[in-house]
Amino acid sequence: MTLSMKYSFKNDYSEMAHPEILTVLSDVGNEQFEGYGLDEHSITAAMLIRKALKAPYADIHFIAGGTHANLVMISSALRPHEAVIAPKSGHIFVHETGAIEATGHKICVRDGLNGKLTVGDIESVVSEHGDDEHMVKPKLVYISLSTETGTVYTKAELAAISFYCRNNGLYLYIDGARLGAAINSPACDLKYSDLPNLADAFFIGGTKNGALFGEAIVICNEQLKVDFRYLLKQRGGLLAKTAAIGVQFKTLFAGGLYDELAKHSIAMAKKLADGIRALGYEFLCPVETNLILPVFPNEIVDRLREHYGFYDWQRFEDKTAVRLLTSWATPEDKVDCFLADLKE
Amino acid sequence: MTLSMKYSFKNDYSEMAHPEILTVLSDVGNEQFEGYGLDEHSITAAMLIRKALKAPYADIHFIAGGTHANLVMISSALRPHEAVIAPKSGHIFVHETGAIEATGHKICVRDGLNGKLTVGDIESVVSEHGDDEHMVKPKLVYISLSTETGTVYTKAELAAISFYCRNNGLYLYIDGARLGAAINSPACDLKYSDLPNLADAFFIGGTKNGALFGEAIVICNEQLKVDFRYLLKQRGGLLAKTAAIGVQFKTLFAGGLYDELAKHSIAMAKKLADGIRALGYEFLCPVETNLILPVFPNEIVDRLREHYGFYDWQRFEDKTAVRLLTSWATPEDKVDCFLADLKE
Amino acid sequence: MTLSMKYSFKNDYSEMAHPEILTVLSDVGNEQFEGYGLDEHSITAAMLIRKALKAPYADIHFIAGGTHANLVMISSALRPHEAVIAPKSGHIFVHETGAIEATGHKICVRDGLNGKLTVGDIESVVSEHGDDEHMVKPKLVYISLSTETGTVYTKAELAAISFYCRNNGLYLYIDGARLGAAINSPACDLKYSDLPNLADAFFIGGTKNGALFGEAIVICNEQLKVDFRYLLKQRGGLLAKTAAIGVQFKTLFAGGLYDELAKHSIAMAKKLADGIRALGYEFLCPVETNLILPVFPNEIVDRLREHYGFYDWQRFEDKTAVRLLTSWATPEDKVDCFLADLKE
Amino acid sequence: MTLSMKYSFKNDYSEMAHPEILTVLSDVGNEQFEGYGLDEHSITAAMLIRKALKAPYADIHFIAGGTHANLVMISSALRPHEAVIAPKSGHIFVHETGAIEATGHKICVRDGLNGKLTVGDIESVVSEHGDDEHMVKPKLVYISLSTETGTVYTKAELAAISFYCRNNGLYLYIDGARLGAAINSPACDLKYSDLPNLADAFFIGGTKNGALFGEAIVICNEQLKVDFRYLLKQRGGLLAKTAAIGVQFKTLFAGGLYDELAKHSIAMAKKLADGIRALGYEFLCPVETNLILPVFPNEIVDRLREHYGFYDWQRFEDKTAVRLLTSWATPEDKVDCFLADLKE
Repeated sequence: MTLSMKYSFKNDYSEMAHPEILTVLSDVGNEQFEGYGLDEHSITAAMLIRKALKAPYADIHFIAGGTHANLVMISSALRPHEAVIAPKSGHIFVHETGAIEATGHKICVRDGLNGKLTVGDIESVVSEHGDDEHMVKPKLVYISLSTETGTVYTKAELAAISFYCRNNGLYLYIDGARLGAAINSPACDLKYSDLPNLADAFFIGGTKNGALFGEAIVICNEQLKVDFRYLLKQRGGLLAKTAAIGVQFKTLFAGGLYDELAKHSIAMAKKLADGIRALGYEFLCPVETNLILPVFPNEIVDRLREHYGFYDWQRFEDKTAVRLLTSWATPEDKVDCFLADLKE
Repeated sequence: MTLSMKYSFKNDYSEMAHPEILTVLSDVGNEQFEGYGLDEHSITAAMLIRKALKAPYADIHFIAGGTHANLVMISSALRPHEAVIAPKSGHIFVHETGAIEATGHKICVRDGLNGKLTVGDIESVVSEHGDDEHMVKPKLVYISLSTETGTVYTKAELAAISFYCRNNGLYLYIDGARLGAAINSPACDLKYSDLPNLADAFFIGGTKNGALFGEAIVICNEQLKVDFRYLLKQRGGLLAKTAAIGVQFKTLFAGGLYDELAKHSIAMAKKLADGIRALGYEFLCPVETNLILPVFPNEIVDRLREHYGFYDWQRFEDKTAVRLLTSWATPEDKVDCFLADLKE
Repeated sequence: MTLSMKYSFKNDYSEMAHPEILTVLSDVGNEQFEGYGLDEHSITAAMLIRKALKAPYADIHFIAGGTHANLVMISSALRPHEAVIAPKSGHIFVHETGAIEATGHKICVRDGLNGKLTVGDIESVVSEHGDDEHMVKPKLVYISLSTETGTVYTKAELAAISFYCRNNGLYLYIDGARLGAAINSPACDLKYSDLPNLADAFFIGGTKNGALFGEAIVICNEQLKVDFRYLLKQRGGLLAKTAAIGVQFKTLFAGGLYDELAKHSIAMAKKLADGIRALGYEFLCPVETNLILPVFPNEIVDRLREHYGFYDWQRFEDKTAVRLLTSWATPEDKVDCFLADLKE
Repeated sequence: MTLSMKYSFKNDYSEMAHPEILTVLSDVGNEQFEGYGLDEHSITAAMLIRKALKAPYADIHFIAGGTHANLVMISSALRPHEAVIAPKSGHIFVHETGAIEATGHKICVRDGLNGKLTVGDIESVVSEHGDDEHMVKPKLVYISLSTETGTVYTKAELAAISFYCRNNGLYLYIDGARLGAAINSPACDLKYSDLPNLADAFFIGGTKNGALFGEAIVICNEQLKVDFRYLLKQRGGLLAKTAAIGVQFKTLFAGGLYDELAKHSIAMAKKLADGIRALGYEFLCPVETNLILPVFPNEIVDRLREHYGFYDWQRFEDKTAVRLLTSWATPEDKVDCFLADLKE
């Protein structure tokens, strides 16, 4: 058995794109369109997203990737001495090669719980800094929905954070690389239309939910809207072919495809988790979306690795928490196979 | 007649992508691949590009857009006090919203001729700066091939610049957003395989030559190769779905499609230019690629604008130089139409 | 004759400090003071400066040097995509090693006249950029008073620039490294109290007018005042020993010493210029402050260089414009000597 | 009793400057000197420092303050994706308003012990990052000598760190704002001449040891020397009046004044600490230099605060660790007073 025949639970972006997306891209034919997001496809996609969010005044901008969305949005929002508050597991703090610091801003972290930040965490950063000009000034709270450990915020949790932020002059920004998996999670009572009321800005991830590539940045706060396209261009994020992202989001948001794909990936993760739990294994974090962290004895991990691709998340003495991701493309029989192999 | 029915000569990226590209993207199906350019498609594409360049040791990196390619490459190459030398018409100086300065580096410009920089221009910047620590230190020469005015460097011209750069400790970097149009221009005696010998780094543009999106950065200088993927990630340019670019470049470079598309766009521009010249009009710059700058009386420009999309390039008292771009997708009959309308 | 015996007209900061300044520094003795500008000396100095400016609400911040003042102020005022408009001879553009670009901002230059920017210059930068997000957004006008060529703006000239800036959403910032020489120039009808009405921010130079070191940044625009001390600290400009600058400015502004020193340096320059003109030589720019640019035949320049220190400003075929600076410390007999030597 | 009559143990830079320094500054008179550190005073001072360090090839640069020294040195040494390793209490991490991040670099922290980083701390940062381009690349170790909690590294400790750094391609940089207090500490067996062998660069603090202002940056690693003056200028640190710092360091290092002042401040701290310990109080960290952290019951702290200035360092339920600093200027009778008041 060769390496390439292993089935991969490594990521939710391991397949090219949902067939419907590719079909629509091809169907455009030789139609001519405006560059830089001023085309009809992008305009329609933005309209559909605004409708899904019930946010007629939100600004929508398309960009190729999530790290890029984060750095453009955050560096656009902050003055040089202003800083970000994030959970220690936050993608911007761990896995973006210091992209935020490279735009000049410090990230102040707290441990959080299950990848989530609490109001208490935010409060402790704020009170530690006070009004001391010898320290940075925390100004923007960054959270992920769903988080790096596959968990979600409830509406009450997010509302509490939002309330604290507004009362304390902080922006709330949500990294929604896996927003579909969050909103469609049974553990999450948030609706798309809650987000514009609670957050100042966020992005809706396409790359990890069936798109060929692309994310939709949503800006709700009037102040953050100003001149955003300049920033997008300056950081290299304003693509001539933005229409190619617009077409995709139009397809994803026209008739429920975005949610449908997220639901499939959650269903596959649930089936996988249920099976694993039935076999007596535990999880590092609650199972809530399409990313699960079961803990297996090391010899089992080694055996599974022969047939499946996945990452080790945390190593303990004789056990390892592994990260398994399902996607819009995960076939049910691969889940069955995994569970059968695990049983053996 | 509605706006959308105008035929546009505004850009060479007004159509989605060449059908073959879209077909190949669809054909990948549910195959799983590694993220971040470590997939088979990107690896094969890089191999094909290296072969075309006769540069087995060049590093190839894929990125979504040209402005992004420029800023990642340049900011990776320079220490904070080092600066860029560019022609005044250079894309990085005029139309990238200060992207290079946003990474901390000054651009020192010279007028150049027809969008091209001469050795004399470069020399004058170098001698003006000397070894004075109160001034920036010029370290990288930026040129475009083809240029913003559609012209090309000859092999002799590029070799002279390259020779000067090597003797003076300067990097030579080429913005190849329209590299296909340059290499396939009858006015240009450069071959792909000349570039790795003459330049330290460059990029091969996909966006403006039939790709859905994407550019291939080529690094030849060993020093510039070091840790480049870190920079790519830090600036938001390392896409999870790099495979989607890899597939496209594989298609473009597997059997000559890249050149074929460039040749078509040049042929259309030539036909357009010949027709215009036959009607007695002049050009602001030599006609060499797929971007031409004819000068028309203002009333003619106004009339043409009713039926065709294009940008005004430079306004004189009663004349205007307009910018007409043809592309891989330009139908010959649209060129005929334009010439017929012009004749009237 | 050794090198060190040459008398230097190179700069107005070639001597340590005016004796009164050094005396006052010594007189402080072992008194304890607060750090970072919160001491009584700095507070009193700020009060005296506000009084001289008739600007009771201006914010005053002390910093060690002029390049530093420029980069902290400008980077504090601008969002990432915003740019500076400056004359081509501007210190920030030529002689600060790309300090402004290093904070991320482009400088858009115009030739200007005699080192001065006109409203037409500013207008042409603004109209060239329009509202195009592919270009930077000009937001701050930088001028020097007096300029790099020793000239001054009249009140009418400065008011016209200020009026244009306010009507077009631009900040006006004045580099006042040689503000004393400007305000005390017979060619300048501006008073200190005009500046807060016309400019959004500026700095008053101590280094070039008798201080041991130090500049006083003055911020008049409420928006630019916000959190400025954070920026000052972040860029390394908030000195623990700010009191050492405060004491100096207290001394300079308590009883007219600042103007007295400027007047002396202007008087010495005038005497020098009158003598040079009487001998039949011309000047590159009007003689208005303590920096003059006489044009001498090259063989005369070579002879003078044997006995005097100065910089060549601009070389012509057989002539050279040299830069001569007088200072608060220039002895009249050195001026006489120079003129006598020139006569020979 | 007014506020200003409280004796302050807040800082070691609360007094203007040692009288000898001020005398020498005055004695220079109207002598003319070159700008930007090219003067005889700075050259002599550099020579004396090299001699004290037994490092004839070290490069010496003078700068006004410590935060500035740190940011210029660190941003000069690193490529954009490279990061700093520091203790969590490190000045650059806590009290420099994100100055390092503002130059684009992330700081990776470990708790350390008593303000000191161990080889194990550094190793854990390095191994956590591996060769993963999705994370920053740790490249420079930052430590303070003495530390923020008044402790020192022994020669063995520093040698172990240095050895690890060299074997792992890391630069070692020492913040020596209180280097005098460290080298003259009885707890420290390091000599000045050990530093160039163990560190790649460091600075010798003047501001906190009797100078009016100023620090001396010492660069030992050849690679870090390249073009450093450009960086110094670009970040606003190259003062026209560098001679004013040169004169001071010449004075401090000509005849042992630097050590003499440090010894006095350590002796005062020792007396203070001995007295406090004799009264039965404990300390948060070992007492090793001129900064001590005694722990007092809160009501005692409140009473002491009526007569003495100091900062609270860490608050416990009913106790507080306060920070007491002595300096070159601390009179012995103030120490006696403090102890007498404490006894009461």
